[in-house]
Amino acid sequence: MRGEILSVGTELLLGQITNTNARYLAERLAAAGVFVYHQVTVGDNRERLRAAYQLALSRADVIVATGGLGPTYDDLTKEVLAEVLGQPLVQDDLALKTLEDLFGAKGLAFGDVQRKQAMRPAGAELLPNPRGTAPGVLWQAGEHWVVLLPGPPHEMRAMFEASVFPRLRAASGEHLVSTSLRVVGIGEGALQERLEDLMALENPTVAPYAKLAEVELRVSARAESDAAAEALIGPVALEVRRRLGYHVYGEGATQLHDACGEALHARGLTVATAESVTGGLVAERLTRTPGASAYVRGACVVYALQEKERQLDVDPRKVGDGVSGELALDMARSVRARLAADVGIATCGFAGPEGREVGLAYVAIAGALGEKSRELHAHGDRQEIRERIAQAALTLLWERLRRKE
Amino acid sequence: MRGEILSVGTELLLGQITNTNARYLAERLAAAGVFVYHQVTVGDNRERLRAAYQLALSRADVIVATGGLGPTYDDLTKEVLAEVLGQPLVQDDLALKTLEDLFGAKGLAFGDVQRKQAMRPAGAELLPNPRGTAPGVLWQAGEHWVVLLPGPPHEMRAMFEASVFPRLRAASGEHLVSTSLRVVGIGEGALQERLEDLMALENPTVAPYAKLAEVELRVSARAESDAAAEALIGPVALEVRRRLGYHVYGEGATQLHDACGEALHARGLTVATAESVTGGLVAERLTRTPGASAYVRGACVVYALQEKERQLDVDPRKVGDGVSGELALDMARSVRARLAADVGIATCGFAGPEGREVGLAYVAIAGALGEKSRELHAHGDRQEIRERIAQAALTLLWERLRRKE
Repeated sequence: MRGEILSVGTELLLGQITNTNARYLAERLAAAGVFVYHQVTVGDNRERLRAAYQLALSRADVIVATGGLGPTYDDLTKEVLAEVLGQPLVQDDLALKTLEDLFGAKGLAFGDVQRKQAMRPAGAELLPNPRGTAPGVLWQAGEHWVVLLPGPPHEMRAMFEASVFPRLRAASGEHLVSTSLRVVGIGEGALQERLEDLMALENPTVAPYAKLAEVELRVSARAESDAAAEALIGPVALEVRRRLGYHVYGEGATQLHDACGEALHARGLTVATAESVTGGLVAERLTRTPGASAYVRGACVVYALQEKERQLDVDPRKVGDGVSGELALDMARSVRARLAADVGIATCGFAGPEGREVGLAYVAIAGALGEKSRELHAHGDRQEIRERIAQAALTLLWERLRRKE
Repeated sequence: MRGEILSVGTELLLGQITNTNARYLAERLAAAGVFVYHQVTVGDNRERLRAAYQLALSRADVIVATGGLGPTYDDLTKEVLAEVLGQPLVQDDLALKTLEDLFGAKGLAFGDVQRKQAMRPAGAELLPNPRGTAPGVLWQAGEHWVVLLPGPPHEMRAMFEASVFPRLRAASGEHLVSTSLRVVGIGEGALQERLEDLMALENPTVAPYAKLAEVELRVSARAESDAAAEALIGPVALEVRRRLGYHVYGEGATQLHDACGEALHARGLTVATAESVTGGLVAERLTRTPGASAYVRGACVVYALQEKERQLDVDPRKVGDGVSGELALDMARSVRARLAADVGIATCGFAGPEGREVGLAYVAIAGALGEKSRELHAHGDRQEIRERIAQAALTLLWERLRRKE
């Protein structure tokens, strides 16, 4: 099936926002067996939107449009689609009832503007919006599919996954399945060397994508069913894991803080962080994982210099010497004792943008997993440096969790 | 001048990368007086690229294409452009000499593959690449411009700014200037009501963009010079500020934590945070601002329940009762005293995804700016809820900083 992505929004044409929806849909349509040949962006303009629909219908089987739904847009993409299909807009009673209930439950006024959201081109169906109010639209006739999704990414994604992806995949009969293996603590060069023969495979393919201080290794296979694709992926993913060992910290959407959390929880260990340069980012990341209260005791953010002494009882001479591995280690020891955690993690360094040695940082661990500090030189702007330092602290925690097994 | 952006690359169609080039060019073309009506993405495919050029030439004056230049692409966009224009590819002797020198200086081999980079459609000129090797192409005839730029963003941007932007702006004689006003603490409905007449203006325009728990108001004007556009924007931006008062916290790239930091610094106040549900996010945001060590004392992340008692001396009975405004206030008071800060900020609540009352949270402030707690019901997934709660805490801080002025 040939696909086309149609993004509607003047804010995209003006460059006010980046079109992340197109990337997401392109990837997910490929996974559903729809080959996207064109992506087109037009503004909130009837004439150009009409021409874009007509062109897309002439060359694609599946058209997925985002944006221009909802009351502030006057439901532009829906109205113009009805025109192009030569269908009247009709009221969907079930959707109207659902919307009225939704607005009523929130105590919001429901008027003519909101009522328009319950309209659909005759012959089309409305798709429920699990994260917002504007329903989506799905029209299908023969080989042709037209899907209208809301513009806000979290609404778009939830609706696409629930109501569109499974149906497209069933229709295409093509199954592209991917598994992401997430890798830390090994450089891209060393990775390529260890996996060279696997990266030359054609089905499944093995491809590395560099992320911030980690690598996502994507193993993808095409087959006539999920099970057949998974059978192709399985042995290759296993071989990657065998060669990379604990450097593979997880699969899929798992993040390094999730993997650390799971390992801490499994071993009954609690953790506390003492953070200078990262300002709380390590603790913030660890607490993104649901259920983190079972193993995260807390954190001391010691941003002002004298706080390192006051809150953490760190030797004033070590503070006076500026950042060092010894200081980070002392911070880790202290926060562990102070918060009665099994493991202490600490960060200190310079994030800039002013001053000398921008990017120099130390991360340290102390307690039940042994003691270790590590120097790093992080690059990028201030926030990227902070993110790299937090990632380095979690990498150290991860390595220690796995090495002591 | 009507513009069209053409992005060439199979990796875009597969969703492997986000098209940040299109956003950048859209914004810069608008600033140069080129109105972009279409953005189109096609893969590295001759036939579809040819059709895309032909369509763009039929409806736009200025076509800017990115990607598909350079030896690994076989100079696809350049060759197909020559075909579409009906011009032969000719060798550019000056570019050839420059490339040979460049490769020689780096000690790299220079062969037939590299020599192709010095070819251009007859009648076009090659644009130097300040950051890489593949030259760009600029073809102009009458009202029509076709510009080919390399795909890597830093090469594309440097070439566009040096060789394209000044010429387009001179040709268009149109200048678009925008100012963003950033607004918190007022709903979109109330905002529309207060600014209804301003939002109906045509030059400058005033348009709201919803962000996470804040609104970006963009005031944009077109004129024959930057100064003339700024003169149109000035009074309208001033009137917006007059009507919205302290709800406008900043302009341009300023974030709420930057604005809070600047106000704290200006008033010589220090701040400390006590965070439960946000896990350190409020402190992390405040410390993103360069120079934050002048006013951020630190933070206590009290994630485990008993830590609220241990680290913050909060009354155990209040902890036992679960989250409340009183608990948040006690946390704010305690962290302020404990870290010897002028102002304490606190958060507590439920981020889910499991459990009752997901999204219920309290933020509080105590100390030199008075005492206040506020209940909120945040929606979204776990991380979005946490981000909304952190934003609510910073909004409370901002309001108190401005009200006491």
